[in-house]
Amino acid sequence: MSKRPGHLNLLAMLNNGGHHLAAWKHPKGRAGAGLDIKQYIHYAQVAEKGLLDGLFIADVAALWGKDLEALSRTSRGEHYEPLTLLSLLAGVTEHIGLIGTATTSYNEPYHIARKFASLDHLSGGRAGWNVVTSVVGDESRNFGREEHFSHSGRYERAEEFVDVVRKLWNSWEEGAVTLDADHGRYFDPTKVHAIDHVGAHFSVRGPLNISRTPQGEPVLVQAGASASGKRLAARIAEIIFAPHDDISAAQAYYAEVKAAAAAFGRPAHAIRILPGITPVVGKTRQDAQDFFDQLQELLDPVVGLRLLADTLGDDLDLSGYDPDGPLPPIPAGNKGSRRDFAVALAEQKHLSIRQLYQHLAERNAVIGTAADIADRFEDWYDSEAADGFNLFFPHDPGGIEDFVSLVVPELQRRGRFRKAYDSTTLRGHFGLDTPYSAGVQVAS
Amino acid sequence: MSKRPGHLNLLAMLNNGGHHLAAWKHPKGRAGAGLDIKQYIHYAQVAEKGLLDGLFIADVAALWGKDLEALSRTSRGEHYEPLTLLSLLAGVTEHIGLIGTATTSYNEPYHIARKFASLDHLSGGRAGWNVVTSVVGDESRNFGREEHFSHSGRYERAEEFVDVVRKLWNSWEEGAVTLDADHGRYFDPTKVHAIDHVGAHFSVRGPLNISRTPQGEPVLVQAGASASGKRLAARIAEIIFAPHDDISAAQAYYAEVKAAAAAFGRPAHAIRILPGITPVVGKTRQDAQDFFDQLQELLDPVVGLRLLADTLGDDLDLSGYDPDGPLPPIPAGNKGSRRDFAVALAEQKHLSIRQLYQHLAERNAVIGTAADIADRFEDWYDSEAADGFNLFFPHDPGGIEDFVSLVVPELQRRGRFRKAYDSTTLRGHFGLDTPYSAGVQVAS
Repeated sequence: MSKRPGHLNLLAMLNNGGHHLAAWKHPKGRAGAGLDIKQYIHYAQVAEKGLLDGLFIADVAALWGKDLEALSRTSRGEHYEPLTLLSLLAGVTEHIGLIGTATTSYNEPYHIARKFASLDHLSGGRAGWNVVTSVVGDESRNFGREEHFSHSGRYERAEEFVDVVRKLWNSWEEGAVTLDADHGRYFDPTKVHAIDHVGAHFSVRGPLNISRTPQGEPVLVQAGASASGKRLAARIAEIIFAPHDDISAAQAYYAEVKAAAAAFGRPAHAIRILPGITPVVGKTRQDAQDFFDQLQELLDPVVGLRLLADTLGDDLDLSGYDPDGPLPPIPAGNKGSRRDFAVALAEQKHLSIRQLYQHLAERNAVIGTAADIADRFEDWYDSEAADGFNLFFPHDPGGIEDFVSLVVPELQRRGRFRKAYDSTTLRGHFGLDTPYSAGVQVAS
Repeated sequence: MSKRPGHLNLLAMLNNGGHHLAAWKHPKGRAGAGLDIKQYIHYAQVAEKGLLDGLFIADVAALWGKDLEALSRTSRGEHYEPLTLLSLLAGVTEHIGLIGTATTSYNEPYHIARKFASLDHLSGGRAGWNVVTSVVGDESRNFGREEHFSHSGRYERAEEFVDVVRKLWNSWEEGAVTLDADHGRYFDPTKVHAIDHVGAHFSVRGPLNISRTPQGEPVLVQAGASASGKRLAARIAEIIFAPHDDISAAQAYYAEVKAAAAAFGRPAHAIRILPGITPVVGKTRQDAQDFFDQLQELLDPVVGLRLLADTLGDDLDLSGYDPDGPLPPIPAGNKGSRRDFAVALAEQKHLSIRQLYQHLAERNAVIGTAADIADRFEDWYDSEAADGFNLFFPHDPGGIEDFVSLVVPELQRRGRFRKAYDSTTLRGHFGLDTPYSAGVQVAS
């Protein structure tokens, strides 16, 4: 395949103390544990200094998981609500994109459309919405339902939800706000429209109570893995978080989603595909590996066994087994491919229980020097396995600083990353020219 | 009545170009029209320089009113979503309180509890929630309902909504977050509790996914005018926006609400009552009056007649009448006391149609010198008609700067306003010591 010009798109995923489950206990991650807003401001400003495309905030509208004992040994038990955090960060940065997660399962489209429009206005065009459906068990119970919507029900709702949000974003035409004090017109009433949406899940009259945003529409982000998820991604997503750590699987996904998007009339460049990756960078490979080994050693067995149960089956109790012994026979569950993949891996590589949960905690780690990490990026990029990467820093503070001071200059030297922002919008950073409207009828 | 020691509590209500409906057209208000975030940052920093207790953002989750023609001639057609705006302002201020409005009619308590908890954490304890129920016609239609909940239904829902939010805020005990890296405990799992709320309107399991906030609970604000509204205020509100411009009515309301609160076991100092007021300050009375007259002259008759119809009856069409002639006989409507009050006022004072809508646009204006405005504040304060005021600046930029540079020093000279912040929290500014829990059982 021929080398593509252009640059990588890089998003920084922020988390309380870092993404490794034990990072908050490591001396390097300790200062980042908790909700100290000064730390988040620092991360955002370092990421902007490093010219990254955006910041990304994951979300679950519940405590993560039901196991309070395991959760209490991680920093995952509390986190800022994404829109409030990103709005604050908008005020202390100037260029970097701001992507927040919000579920379509337990929200109302009018609220979501407003909040992201508001963020887009107050950031001067830097907002992105990561569209998700709810899958974590306890989320439903915080919103009056014993169980989640079915998988297909969730995606039907998500498809309609996104359409309503986009109609609302388009309910004020370009140029509707005239601020014409001399003629007494703040806006042109012929350019503001009710949407009168009536669908299976939502009835929404509109229009929105905030004008068309600097980006026209905030950028839509999605992580489609299932068939329904990939269909939604192909139809509406502009940035996709891909799940793969294997280059062949990533290439197949890349080709499949871009082809599916083409079937919706969308050109390949309308979608940027970014696998998640955990860069562990050191001055030498040994430094990087030693540091990562320290993190893995800090992983609490209670947390590790919970991670195994989350993957292999909720009822699995391995607490009576020697963590350095082999995995016992695992009863068939309904966890699908993740479960089967983990069991097969443990068998093939003769992993102990501890080694398997340490592997699960890695989250696509790439451990090495800046050159090693840049090689990996270029390799995937040139093989059409990725258009960029979503970066999970193992520990913060430290992870983002190391990446910006070591990996970014290496990518710049290779001509694979910007040397200055040439845009002030998230859409601009990703080269997403204009909002598309394929498949969505905008109210008139 | 004896003079009370202490100081006034003052909140600044922010709005697009100012609160007078024509302000955005006046040369002084013009620069503030629109969504320029730099202006909002400026207002917040001026208000903080003036040592005000807080900023307050009103809200409606719909276009304000159905009359696009009239709305297009005001700056009310668009506004920032309060939580996003306040979160940004939290990052560029250090002391001032941040009060946002969110309706209990079309929200979920888990989302609201999270967002205000998040704002309280990221502002270091400056968040307040203005609890409202939805009354504007088109709000219901943005959330799948042809009509609003009934008045009693709305308040039943609001009562339960607030209880659920407070339970969630208390779902992490004081001291639950230990960040004890040495023992591997981020939080103490015995101090984090599901709330298992099951009520008529909501079923919410909890706990919240963010720890107890700096204020313990964000401050609860409410504007109860109806019997149900006053009951809710007496039970849960810590700051109340009172509607009156007449001192006797304000005194009666003040006494009634504090007595009603006492019946819920709450001491008088647990509630601060702040009437809304529009200070129009000039170096001389004539300057102030001249400026306000200019604003009134800029009021578009289309906007004025809409204001009249909103007050006297939606179907009222006065467009065929001479605006400088008398009000024609008004058919009996169902607008209750506001309508009757306006009709009686027009008769008694022989007001023309224009004079009546100009009067309605005044919003409790107090027009004069800094001394005049300080006199009014002191008079109401010493008569137990108010514990402070909620300030509607007629024009921004300008209104807030004039108030801070002219009225604040006058109040300070009289010993009626702080000379420095002695607290970093909204609760601290208002002297609200600790969250109360009367009437709400906190989950255990």
